[in-house]
Order: sequence, then structure tokens, then C-alpha cells
Amino acid sequence: MSNLKIDAARLWGSLMETAQIGGTPDGGIARLTLSEDDSRVRHWLRAQCDALGMTMVVDEAGNMFATRPGRRPDLPPIAMGSHLDTQPTGGKFDGVLGVLAGLEVLRTLDEAGFQSEAPLMLVNWTNEEGSRFSPAMLGSGIWAGVYSRDYGDSRTDAGGDSFGASLDRIGWRGEAEAGSVRFGAMFELHIEQGPILEAEGRQIGVVQGVQGMRWFDLGLTGTAAHTGSTPMNLRRNALVGMAQVIGGIDRIARSHKDAVGTIGFLEVSPNSHNVIPGEVRATIDLRHPDDAVLDRMEQEVAALVAEAAQANGLGHRLVPISRTAPVAFDPECIAAVRAGAKAAGLSTRDMISGAGHDAVHAAAVAPTTMIFVPCKGGLSHNPAESTLLEECAAGAQVLLEAVLDYDRRKAERRAEVAA
Amino acid sequence: MSNLKIDAARLWGSLMETAQIGGTPDGGIARLTLSEDDSRVRHWLRAQCDALGMTMVVDEAGNMFATRPGRRPDLPPIAMGSHLDTQPTGGKFDGVLGVLAGLEVLRTLDEAGFQSEAPLMLVNWTNEEGSRFSPAMLGSGIWAGVYSRDYGDSRTDAGGDSFGASLDRIGWRGEAEAGSVRFGAMFELHIEQGPILEAEGRQIGVVQGVQGMRWFDLGLTGTAAHTGSTPMNLRRNALVGMAQVIGGIDRIARSHKDAVGTIGFLEVSPNSHNVIPGEVRATIDLRHPDDAVLDRMEQEVAALVAEAAQANGLGHRLVPISRTAPVAFDPECIAAVRAGAKAAGLSTRDMISGAGHDAVHAAAVAPTTMIFVPCKGGLSHNPAESTLLEECAAGAQVLLEAVLDYDRRKAERRAEVAA
Repeated sequence: MSNLKIDAARLWGSLMETAQIGGTPDGGIARLTLSEDDSRVRHWLRAQCDALGMTMVVDEAGNMFATRPGRRPDLPPIAMGSHLDTQPTGGKFDGVLGVLAGLEVLRTLDEAGFQSEAPLMLVNWTNEEGSRFSPAMLGSGIWAGVYSRDYGDSRTDAGGDSFGASLDRIGWRGEAEAGSVRFGAMFELHIEQGPILEAEGRQIGVVQGVQGMRWFDLGLTGTAAHTGSTPMNLRRNALVGMAQVIGGIDRIARSHKDAVGTIGFLEVSPNSHNVIPGEVRATIDLRHPDDAVLDRMEQEVAALVAEAAQANGLGHRLVPISRTAPVAFDPECIAAVRAGAKAAGLSTRDMISGAGHDAVHAAAVAPTTMIFVPCKGGLSHNPAESTLLEECAAGAQVLLEAVLDYDRRKAERRAEVAA
Repeated sequence: MSNLKIDAARLWGSLMETAQIGGTPDGGIARLTLSEDDSRVRHWLRAQCDALGMTMVVDEAGNMFATRPGRRPDLPPIAMGSHLDTQPTGGKFDGVLGVLAGLEVLRTLDEAGFQSEAPLMLVNWTNEEGSRFSPAMLGSGIWAGVYSRDYGDSRTDAGGDSFGASLDRIGWRGEAEAGSVRFGAMFELHIEQGPILEAEGRQIGVVQGVQGMRWFDLGLTGTAAHTGSTPMNLRRNALVGMAQVIGGIDRIARSHKDAVGTIGFLEVSPNSHNVIPGEVRATIDLRHPDDAVLDRMEQEVAALVAEAAQANGLGHRLVPISRTAPVAFDPECIAAVRAGAKAAGLSTRDMISGAGHDAVHAAAVAPTTMIFVPCKGGLSHNPAESTLLEECAAGAQVLLEAVLDYDRRKAERRAEVAA
């Protein structure tokens, strides 16, 4: 326990101040990555770090790393951060909270004259959202070596602008090679983007990892025919087959603890009131923290699709389109978050992130974990996204406690080893 | 039995000749009602009737009636006909066959110097398809008094042109008041637009009537949320509810003999790979020859929707959008078709029309029935629509036999009454 208290009003003030940069009349933020507004909020962040006497390095993917020295320059920095870019119809908290809470932790330490053992670092990752340039988490992915700089630069938006040219244009291409800036651990505070904490009345989500995800394209093909003159026994109705699959995926997901399974996208052809659907296309989204369970779910879905196709005389085509492995966060980082929440007197719940985050790429390089705070109705990627001042403050306080707890333990361990 | 034989090659020649008027490269016809091509095919038909010495009257809805005198001018005419307009991607047989087979019957009688008791009449109804001006079967509807002339004239197409102005522009507004031309019976030969005759290897469908039809708009409303971070037990997935309804409607239709039930149109919102469907809209199409059964089906569907909504925590909205009562065709006309098929040595199957036809409006005014011939794969409203020369000829032969059979019986009956 640190006896240090973050300043809730100051944190909220920074959230509301930066929400004006790209702010929309409905209370949301439209601050697409590498836009002029993204550049403005980056300048704002640099100015805040300068005011704290921190040293900032920007890498060739535009990722920003500001460092505050610790007592022991031999220790690798402990990082906090997330992203300042938003969806086109984004809210005020997704990503932004993780960066500004990190800044608030550093301001609190600065004010108290507190010195950590390891250096502390604040990170703003480029293009987490992926809504302007696909894929999402591009900046942290380049940093982690998952994508090359050339691949990143070549990504284009809907208007044909490339990531590389846009980064150059707004002046945030740094000199540091991607991956040359490293840290010893990372803590990412984020809104849950789901309804669990709110539903269970818990204040802090202690995130254990990120679900593995498998996406499939499914096409079912029957025969388009007149709804009036085609008797039931002579039909090959692709939508009736798809209905079996929709219901079956829901049942499969419910039959595996912690699994989710969804068809979110569906397209009927010819989609006319009086024509039996001849073809239906859909996307299947399966997620679970354990790859072995995902394997079983995938088998069950394949059997379900074959059965629904056969029962309705349909052709079927099930094609994997995307696959990410589950990520387990670092046990010591998780322990630090748990200890931090306890120190702050806040209720917790262990959870798994259903969405991807920069922490996924960070976890491949360094010990990493995340801290979740509730968001109203589980809503995100929406101007109505809402997390209360006290909830943001609670998250920032846990971030502070967790980072200092981790710092203390690591320094003690080093001391023991040295002794 | 008449000993008269229609000329299959001549009928086929007329079908192929008129198929050039609005013909498309893929072998279909795009001859929208009241287009220049519609006018051209009308001129072609008038010339053929003139060549047979028939008298043509055109009414104010553009419906064409050509009469061939019989031996007994006191008897009302017996009509044959259908429509010459097509869908934008229509085939060569839907509607056209009924008019040209009637013409072929008249040519056959003319060649043989055969005189019927009652006058015979050939009819071409305006705008059966309803694809340019809604509703379908507009010309026969105005003729039957279901719609007023003003209502018909005011219908507009997608480009804002009105039915009335288009009718005037192509010069086919007739002087006869709608409904002033009447007949004593009508026989409409048509392709089945369904797969039954082909599947059962029967040559002639003896049509008993037309199904009643009820259409409903269905909206289910849940909560759009992240597919990854929203656990199964906290979801309100509108598509899972709709899947229950889709499967349930299929089951309800199969549980009632001769019923069909379909969802052909379905729209998911927001329809994104990683968002749980918050709202789904669909159209339900129920058909059966008996209104009492339709009442029961409607009740079962309402219960199904309520149950699916409740099981998934959804709001629901089930709104009737269209309703047509079943039509039973005239027993004497049906008997004449049966006798005609027997005389022609063709296999038959009693059937109910699943689609609407001009015969529905005609049946409200005069004894009416229809004759169906097979179409390949049940396909219609499609350039690939296909009925063989022999099948067209079989239908035309039955039309001839049925009309003459009906004529003979009616004349005999009159003679008995007079005696």
C-alpha cells in the first residue's frame, strides 16, 4: 500500500479536456488514427509529459513512449498505457482512459516526489482501433514484430491513403526503430466493453487473459423458388438451414463454460418477400480462453453445419477466415493488480477479455496484464459509452498501486538474487 | 372430344416471335407493362386478331378483348387469356403462353371453319406483373371493380411516371368503360411457377382455386453488444430469437396439409461480424386454400413469436401487411378442363395455385378456372424459365377441348331450360 492517492478530479478534467479533440455533438469522440485530431491529442500528451520532465521517444510506427527515471537505471521500465485513437463513432473512455490514468499516476508520483525503483513509462499505441487502417492493434503489432514496418506502411484507408503516408503527413513518424524501445512489464487499464462488472456490482476486473477467437464464413445454398407455389416437401430453403445453425451455435457456446458464440452478420439472397431464400451467408464468431475448448467447439460447429445442410438438402461451405490464439497474462502482474485492488479497498472479479487489446501484443514480449473498470450497459464503440468519475478514479488508483507493488517485488527479488 | 388439333409448331413460332419484342440476350423477356415494347406486342396481337376477322375492344385500363362470333349471339362469350407483360427479368412463358395459346385455339377453329355456340373471346390483361406499377393484376382488378380507374391511373413507377399517363402515352387507353365488356366464363392457361407437375411427371394441372395469403412484418428487438465481451447469459440476441421463428414457421406450415409458410426477407442490424444482432426484421408469408386453416396458422405464428421473444428477452412487433382470401374456381369450368385433358389423353393432377393470377379477379365476376403446364425446376420470373414445345402444345390442346366442352354443355343446358 502506497498512501498515495490519485486526483480523481484532475483525471476527469484531462478526460473531458481531451474529449474536445475530435469531440462530437452527441458527447462521443471521432478521433481516427493519424488524423489531424490524433496529431493534436498527441501534442497535448507530449506537453503533459514534458511538464513532468519525462523523456519521450517516438518509434517509426508512431508509438509514443515517455519515461520517468527510477532509483535503479539498471531495471527495465514498467509501462502503463493504451491508445488515444477512437472509432468513427467512439466514446470518451475506450483506450483514452488507459493513457490518461497512466498520466495521472505519474502526476501523482511527481507531486508526492515519490521515486520508484524501476523507471516508469507511459505508452500511447498507434491505431489500436483498426477502423481507419486494418488490422486493429497495428502499432503494438509492429512494435512486437508481428507485422513489419513495410506491411504497416502499406495499409490503406477507404479513401486510398496509406498508413505510412498519413503518419508522415501528421509528423508523428519517430526515429526509433520499432521494437527498439522495450519495457519490463506493462499494465493496461481499460473499460470492460462488456456488462459483467456492472451486472455483478464489482468495481475492478482482474484480467487473466484474452480469449482465443475463431471466425468462419458460412454459406448455405438451396434453391430460390416461389413461396406460394413450392410445396414444403419440395423446398431447399437455405434460411431454414441457417436458422438451425444460429440456434445450434448459441447452444454450443452455452454448453462450454466461459465460451461465447455468435452469428452477427447474415445476408439472405434474393431477400424478397415471396421468394424462398436460395442462399444465405453468415459469419460465425467463436471465443474461449482455452484453445482445446475452441477445437471442440469448432468440431461441433462443423457437425452442426453438415447436419443442418443435410436436413434441408443444402450445399454448404464453412471457411475459416481468422484465428487468434488465447493469451494468458503474467501471474505476477495479475498478483500485483489483485494486491493493488485490495490496497485500494475495491471489490474485484477475475475475468477474461473478450475483445483484443494492445496488451495482447505486449504480452508476447514482456510480462503484461490489464485492469478493467465497468462501463454502463456494457456499451462501447458508441458515443453513449459511459464510465463514472469514481469508476475511472478507482481504475487509476489500482493502476498506481499495482505498478508500485510490482516495482517493489521486482526490486526485492533482484536484491535477493544479488545477495 | 373435338377432333380438332392445335398446331404446336405455329404456337411455338408465335411464342418465339413475340419473345423478340423486349427479348434479352440471355433468352428472357424484359417487357414491362405500358412500355414501348408492351405497345409493340399489343399491335402484333391486334394484327393477328384482325387477320382472323375478330372484333377488338380496348377498355380504359388498356385491357384488350377480341371476339369471334358464335352460332348463338344470345350467349355470353367464353374467354381465354392471360397477360403479355413480363417481369424486368422475365421468361418467355409466364402470361404470354395463356394469350398465345388462346390465339392458337382461335386460329385452329378458324382453319377448320368450326363455329362454337357462344362467342369466343381472347383477353390480354394490363399490368398483371405489378413490377412497374404496384399492385399486381391491376388491369383485371379495375375490370372487376376491385380498383377504380382513378386509383389505377394514379399508380406511379420508380421513375415517377403514372399508370394513366403511361397508358395514354403508348396509345392503348381504350374507349370502353372498365367492366363494360363482360364474358360468361374464362379459362386461363399458365405455367405452374412451381415444381409439382415436373416432380410428379404429370402433364396438366387442373387448378381448383388460389390459396389465401397473409403477410406479416415481424420485428424482434434485443441489445446490440460486443460478441467477445458479452457472456451468453447476459445476451438479448434478436437473431437467435428470429432463428426460433424461422424454424417454427417451417414446422407450422408442414403440420397443416397444403399449407406453405416462409420467411423470404430478413434484415439484421447492425449486421457486423463482432456485434450481437440488436434488431432483426423479417416478412412472414403464410398461404392455404382455406381461410379457417389460415386463422389457425396465424394464431400459431403469434404464439411462436411471443414465445421466441420471451425466451430471448426480446421486444416483438408482428404487423399484418397484406391479406387475400382464398379463391375457389368454378366446378363446371374445372369439369370442362378435366374432360378436356381426358379427351387429349393427358395425365392430370388437381392443384391449387400458390401465386395470384388475373383469374382471381375474373372469378369474382364470372365462372373461371385455370390450366397449368409444367415449368422446368419450378422456375419463373427468370430468363431461364422453360416449358417445352410439347408441354405448351398440351396446354393449348386442353384449353381448346375445355372451352369447346364448356360451350357444348352450356348450350345444351340452355336448350333444356328452353324446352
